[in-house]
Amino acid sequence: MKLRFYNAKIMRRPDLPLEEGEVCTEGGRIVSVGARPEGFIAEREIDCGNNLLMSGFCNAHTHAAMSLFRGVADDLPLDKWLYERIFPMEDHLTPEDVYWGTMLQAAEFVKSGITCIADMYFYPDEVYAAAKNARLCVALCCGANSYSSYDVPAFIGKMLAKYSTMSDRVRYFPGLHAEYTCEEKLIEAVADIAAESGAPTYIHLSETLKEVGDCTVRHGGLTPPQYLHKLGFFDNGGLAAHCTYANKDDVALLKQSGVVPVINGGSNLKLASGVAPVTSMLAAGLRPALGTDGSASNNATSLFREMYLYSCLQKKTMKDASAVSAEEALSAATVNGYSALGFDGGVLEAGKFADMVLLDLSAPNMHPLSDIKKNVVYSADTSLVLMTIANGKIVYERGSYHIGEPLGKIYAECEKRIKRLIAEAGF
Amino acid sequence: MKLRFYNAKIMRRPDLPLEEGEVCTEGGRIVSVGARPEGFIAEREIDCGNNLLMSGFCNAHTHAAMSLFRGVADDLPLDKWLYERIFPMEDHLTPEDVYWGTMLQAAEFVKSGITCIADMYFYPDEVYAAAKNARLCVALCCGANSYSSYDVPAFIGKMLAKYSTMSDRVRYFPGLHAEYTCEEKLIEAVADIAAESGAPTYIHLSETLKEVGDCTVRHGGLTPPQYLHKLGFFDNGGLAAHCTYANKDDVALLKQSGVVPVINGGSNLKLASGVAPVTSMLAAGLRPALGTDGSASNNATSLFREMYLYSCLQKKTMKDASAVSAEEALSAATVNGYSALGFDGGVLEAGKFADMVLLDLSAPNMHPLSDIKKNVVYSADTSLVLMTIANGKIVYERGSYHIGEPLGKIYAECEKRIKRLIAEAGF
Repeated sequence: MKLRFYNAKIMRRPDLPLEEGEVCTEGGRIVSVGARPEGFIAEREIDCGNNLLMSGFCNAHTHAAMSLFRGVADDLPLDKWLYERIFPMEDHLTPEDVYWGTMLQAAEFVKSGITCIADMYFYPDEVYAAAKNARLCVALCCGANSYSSYDVPAFIGKMLAKYSTMSDRVRYFPGLHAEYTCEEKLIEAVADIAAESGAPTYIHLSETLKEVGDCTVRHGGLTPPQYLHKLGFFDNGGLAAHCTYANKDDVALLKQSGVVPVINGGSNLKLASGVAPVTSMLAAGLRPALGTDGSASNNATSLFREMYLYSCLQKKTMKDASAVSAEEALSAATVNGYSALGFDGGVLEAGKFADMVLLDLSAPNMHPLSDIKKNVVYSADTSLVLMTIANGKIVYERGSYHIGEPLGKIYAECEKRIKRLIAEAGF
Repeated sequence: MKLRFYNAKIMRRPDLPLEEGEVCTEGGRIVSVGARPEGFIAEREIDCGNNLLMSGFCNAHTHAAMSLFRGVADDLPLDKWLYERIFPMEDHLTPEDVYWGTMLQAAEFVKSGITCIADMYFYPDEVYAAAKNARLCVALCCGANSYSSYDVPAFIGKMLAKYSTMSDRVRYFPGLHAEYTCEEKLIEAVADIAAESGAPTYIHLSETLKEVGDCTVRHGGLTPPQYLHKLGFFDNGGLAAHCTYANKDDVALLKQSGVVPVINGGSNLKLASGVAPVTSMLAAGLRPALGTDGSASNNATSLFREMYLYSCLQKKTMKDASAVSAEEALSAATVNGYSALGFDGGVLEAGKFADMVLLDLSAPNMHPLSDIKKNVVYSADTSLVLMTIANGKIVYERGSYHIGEPLGKIYAECEKRIKRLIAEAGF
């Protein structure tokens, strides 16, 4: 399928000035940015109406199927949230639950301009099936722990083999839930797999102050990044979600190990965790990505909200209204995530994935058009998403979803399943 | 005009369960909630599609015409923001600039479900003209200071007389910019006007730590609320915007004086000010309202974002994920604001203003429908606004604006005016 997007304001990447022009795509990739190649005949021509065409967003940390839990575990203390709501429901999750929950989230992803995700959850095959329906780029991240009821290293090995050659839009990350849920021998076993396969790893890291404190007590003063580093878990780099309580030495270690922090500002507020040291990370040369976390702890999967929080929480924390610019937030939400996950996108450039979002510049909150990038970060929300293009296919267009399952069926399945899960969890 | 909104999920007020039914309106007011009165024949019947019908939002602190400055003063240190950008542009504002800037913001207000505002800015007659076009309920709040180039008390007296009997949808609040920009004799003069007229007052209060510190040095240890209280400024109650650094005694004093704090979470983050002590305020029995502040410091006027921040910034600050519930955030965004401003709305009840918003429950981020109130606060954004009804008239409906001026003309006027203002300000 050849598509031509003309009459657009184009953001090639956040650090370049916008330009007017067109973008042509063929199959799943971008053919040209700026002018149309000679002889290019599109099967569909899309008038962008002088709106903003930019990279789709990368949600580099999520648990998509937790969309099922939206609205059933809010305004509770953290331990009650986890032990009386989330864990009891997760105990009863079936592969089909995960498929339909991920489909629901996929609908929200495309409605909010997200074209790439890193998902850490049970039943990766079902996550992949749903993400593939919506043409999303997906990193499947193992989130097992020492209480998992299966042979974790064997499972990771099997998944790595399965997904390593399947498609250039899926990757499997050997990973673990977190330091505090994993025994040393499990961490070492996963580190061994990473070493053998050369794969980067993925883990929740230093999300809460309690996690960091407990780790230092357990492991002779080592913080979670230091402890994991010692075990070789990060020998091939990887991604670390949250990093809320990464200290200065931790930040240096992440940089040195090639580990990209994934900032989850919204989730860290709602679960009362804290604010990650983004300013220190940027100063250390790290290029953080953004994540929304799951819908039980955020509860939207809007990278617009995350960009706003990424910048503004730093301004407040650093007592400096110039901290973390809009352009840095846009990079975190696009190119940094794609790049950290090893996918060939996040910028509009010939040869890259045709993962794009068209944002409405005719809305009042985008006016005046004095600085469109600032407007997108500080004033936009998902109401501006006119169209989302994933892998060269239009997956969302002004209220219509093309994600492989009808919205009505997804909703009916999810309503039925959350009712069953609540009954089974017994709250 | 008689309207019937049927097939709706109705939120009469945030502390009551939702119910299914219909709402009838006549002229500017609600006639019935639940069932239709016998013999009521509507001129238009609106199928709400089983979506959520609730009170329109009250934006209890804004400077609407600052929409002109959106995107021209971001990512700057606070003093540079104020002295090199905002003040120099404001020096050149004309009444027509304020009219068109307010019209632009009015478009954003109705698109985001806002039906009531408290506006503090220059040229209140022009603000009123624009707000009236969009059928908004408007509190005009004087924001003068000792550098104002006109006779402030005389002006306030004139405005009070003009607007006291004009309409039940406009009120004039004697007010001042802030303690730090006003000499004692001016504060006393405005307090005298309030005393004579019985009018509540309005002011920016304890927005930054510097403001509080400077005030205590200037006034023998008195904080801004204590100092203003001493001068009788709050003898008839009123509203105080920000209150970021209100201490425990200040909170008690606000409660005792009948002063309602207006929380501006987004602005306080972006300008690096801080987080207001909302938990203490609620514990003291205060019922805070929400504001977006102006578009140079937020930059959207979305009460969805403010509700999210109102709750989640407290969860983070208090290290308690159960702090400030979704229902409390909904109250702050609706009934608390209307009530603080003395307008007869903010709840769906027969006899109240027909100020309502219809929110799309068919969007993926509203599913599952386990708890619609939690979904609205934690997962919604302005993309859900299907229709906004102000004073019994549909002012926004699925992308169409009925606000007395065409959107294209508003945009053209604003683009022209901000270009002129930047040139005149010389940056």
